[in-house]
Amino acid sequence: MRVCVTGGAGFIGANLVERLLVEGHDIIIIDNFSTGDKRFLPSPIKESIAVMNVDLSQVDEKSLTAMLKDVEVIYHLAANADVRGGWSTTFVDIQHNVIATHNLAVAARNASVRELVFASTGCVYGDSTIIPTPESEPFPIQTSLYGASKVAAEGILSTFSMNEAFSVTVFRFVSVLGKYYHHGHVVDFMRQLLEDPCKLRVLGDGHQKKSYISVEDCVAALASLRGPSCYEVFNIGNTYFCEVQDSATIIASILGVQPQFIFGSERRGWVGDSPFTFLDISKAQSLGWQPHKTIKESLELTVEWLLSNRWALSLDKARTLLRN
Amino acid sequence: MRVCVTGGAGFIGANLVERLLVEGHDIIIIDNFSTGDKRFLPSPIKESIAVMNVDLSQVDEKSLTAMLKDVEVIYHLAANADVRGGWSTTFVDIQHNVIATHNLAVAARNASVRELVFASTGCVYGDSTIIPTPESEPFPIQTSLYGASKVAAEGILSTFSMNEAFSVTVFRFVSVLGKYYHHGHVVDFMRQLLEDPCKLRVLGDGHQKKSYISVEDCVAALASLRGPSCYEVFNIGNTYFCEVQDSATIIASILGVQPQFIFGSERRGWVGDSPFTFLDISKAQSLGWQPHKTIKESLELTVEWLLSNRWALSLDKARTLLRN
Repeated sequence: MRVCVTGGAGFIGANLVERLLVEGHDIIIIDNFSTGDKRFLPSPIKESIAVMNVDLSQVDEKSLTAMLKDVEVIYHLAANADVRGGWSTTFVDIQHNVIATHNLAVAARNASVRELVFASTGCVYGDSTIIPTPESEPFPIQTSLYGASKVAAEGILSTFSMNEAFSVTVFRFVSVLGKYYHHGHVVDFMRQLLEDPCKLRVLGDGHQKKSYISVEDCVAALASLRGPSCYEVFNIGNTYFCEVQDSATIIASILGVQPQFIFGSERRGWVGDSPFTFLDISKAQSLGWQPHKTIKESLELTVEWLLSNRWALSLDKARTLLRN
Repeated sequence: MRVCVTGGAGFIGANLVERLLVEGHDIIIIDNFSTGDKRFLPSPIKESIAVMNVDLSQVDEKSLTAMLKDVEVIYHLAANADVRGGWSTTFVDIQHNVIATHNLAVAARNASVRELVFASTGCVYGDSTIIPTPESEPFPIQTSLYGASKVAAEGILSTFSMNEAFSVTVFRFVSVLGKYYHHGHVVDFMRQLLEDPCKLRVLGDGHQKKSYISVEDCVAALASLRGPSCYEVFNIGNTYFCEVQDSATIIASILGVQPQFIFGSERRGWVGDSPFTFLDISKAQSLGWQPHKTIKESLELTVEWLLSNRWALSLDKARTLLRN
């Protein structure tokens, strides 16, 4: 089958591409290589893969429609995923999560794509008071432009599915850990500890409660979990959560260091950070999907991969420097 | 007080401007005059009004921030409100409802605006199965890009309010009728009946159930209804609904004609049309707001105004021709 993975050179995308290759699909990767990296792509690039260096927010409708010729399924993972940065550069979420999704949806309709799978986020629930949060959460208030832009993208895609352009499956993920991870709190903590193993500064009061899943569990949902109707939404997370300070302790312990922890005083680590993210995943479980890796196992795999691929620890830092 | 009305030359905006003038405010109107019209503005333009011909989706941050200097409250009504057209020209809702709202929010934050009042829509509830639909509707599926774009705008604005940039009140309106109305089913029906009083073609099966309010009731909510917190959402509609065929019968009767009605077979009049829109308005009522005009009275006022201002009957038609 011919499939397209947008953001296929990114963290989750590259893991998905590996799985789809094993399943024998022809794959078109669309990525603007702003946070994706060629080093995450299969090497050497096989014949069954085509890589397009394309920015979905800028591409014209005709070219994108042509790229999607004969594609049956699109996995739409390209996005700005930097929740924190969205408050200082406010247009970045609109551009890469809203406009890009609109452009992709229009081209997918033109090209008669059958199905679109979308990587959304548990951030869409804002500061939900219903914990664990189900998919049927009452209309949530957004706390980050990242969350707002993903709600917008879900709305755009649901419109296309309700008007019979293509079917849509939306996955609202908690934070994901594993191979190719190169942005987020594990990178922040490791950078600090490798520089100075005696102290670790944690954003927020350390009591933020988070659920994490492994990228294998995330990719298993993307590749195979589907519901009965033309528009389905699934929460994807773990069966439990931990505090950010627990996560910091585990990371320090894997690195074999005992730093002094320096916490902030805020409930949120940054603008848009949610003090408590824990999703009700019973809908996904009822259809056979399960998280297999624990948070601790996922953290261990992430730290090990980053230790073996230290260049990835400074990937987003290097890009930020280049941009400024 | 210095206030800004975006879309102040439009249907609801022009009515709001008249009320705010009576209340003695200094008013900055921002409008791109794409569907707004100079004939809706007070004439002659008083000293207390400044009119800016500005497209919020295109304006640069610095200029817009300067325009909002000393503004305390923004009434954000500028939007693409053509639900039907959003499916053929898919970017129009993203541009004028999402990007424009983002740009306004950033400038409002820069200019230290205290409060923003936003005209949203009952369309955000898609095809809700909870009727009458409360503000706390479970996360709805969007059926129109118009609805999706308004959800996006709500999300952007709630992010700014939750991060203490300014407080936000969102009004989700049913369809509005009254003076300066120049786009929608009343115009469609009147155009047909003035051309041929013997027949009236109705989009959809005529059984679509709709609630309408008068623009006076709408403007009363915008100008004075506020809740206790920094982000509040209110449904604004009537206490009952009617079928589109009832509305057609009333309009024909006001015009003194007895046409043959020709109905379609679809539940929806067009892509994104909702077969049943009826909002739970108890939250607004509990804070003292009430709809005062009936649907019939509002239809009568609309038809009378259009008969006295026949140029308005072809306003959107003329613009469509100009665009094509």
